[in-house]
Amino acid sequence: MVRVVIFLADGFEEVEAITPADYLRRAGIEVILAGVGTDTPTGSRGISVVADIAVTDLNGIPDGIVLPGGMPGSRNLAASEPVARLSREVMRTGGLVASICAAPALALGSFGLLKGRSYTCYPGFEEHVSDGDFSDERVVVDGNLITSRGAGTAGDFSLALIRYLAGDEAAEKIAEAVLHYS
Amino acid sequence: MVRVVIFLADGFEEVEAITPADYLRRAGIEVILAGVGTDTPTGSRGISVVADIAVTDLNGIPDGIVLPGGMPGSRNLAASEPVARLSREVMRTGGLVASICAAPALALGSFGLLKGRSYTCYPGFEEHVSDGDFSDERVVVDGNLITSRGAGTAGDFSLALIRYLAGDEAAEKIAEAVLHYS
Repeated sequence: MVRVVIFLADGFEEVEAITPADYLRRAGIEVILAGVGTDTPTGSRGISVVADIAVTDLNGIPDGIVLPGGMPGSRNLAASEPVARLSREVMRTGGLVASICAAPALALGSFGLLKGRSYTCYPGFEEHVSDGDFSDERVVVDGNLITSRGAGTAGDFSLALIRYLAGDEAAEKIAEAVLHYS
Repeated sequence: MVRVVIFLADGFEEVEAITPADYLRRAGIEVILAGVGTDTPTGSRGISVVADIAVTDLNGIPDGIVLPGGMPGSRNLAASEPVARLSREVMRTGGLVASICAAPALALGSFGLLKGRSYTCYPGFEEHVSDGDFSDERVVVDGNLITSRGAGTAGDFSLALIRYLAGDEAAEKIAEAVLHYS
């Protein structure tokens, strides 16, 4: 089974973290909510979620990772050594590296993972990135790097992740089930 | 401050519960996550959230309530005496009664609150309702009753709640901030 880790640090944006967890699990993809620095991370709107595991207890290299945005969640991910190490390992091994909102710029950018790659992020945060190719589309797919813009694009982002990991048909099935387009 | 209670029972649909909580709090509306039968409700995709209070400890009549969908969350809301009582009290006092997915039909319908009202719900669940006026739009606003269809319509639903509680300008501000339309 495909295994995807979603990193949750205090200050994560709730919709940006919960939507991919929900939609990917609907698609039969194993999703692990990894707490970064806490086992009950509290989002940027004050909602606390129970993590499945601590990031420091993860074993092996997952097939994909998701770095949700939110503040100070994105900065907390950027400052986490285990998140930086796993992000670089997944990128190196060709796994899916996905991020949304402030996190592509603040976390992936600071890990050096946007160099020469097409990406998007929350408007304005591209100013923190000097070595990537910014685009203002809702979702940008550049090979194994998928990035998106904000809470309102979290559905499109999640469907793009399913399309990448499980194919067009799986993504369309979930889009229909949740009434994404209707 | 306007006060809205979101009821969370085990089996709640995560995106349908978290999106209104997130967007309404962004709009400065007080949101209380009320646990129904548990203080750490686990959603239909296995995500556990920490409730702010137990539904049995709520005081007074809130300005609005939200009943998220999901299974068996919707059935658990329908079976809850405090949820039924508060839903009827809020409806009687003209407060906002909002619900999405299976919950309009299974919970509000069983409480007798759809009688003669326009509503929507997840496709097929309208068969459980004999006394309401079903419509297949993404969001249906009938005075103080606002209903919607599924996880993919949760953003539209949440913005409609903000529009009702805080006005067009507040809703547009949040729509822009989350990049709902962009």
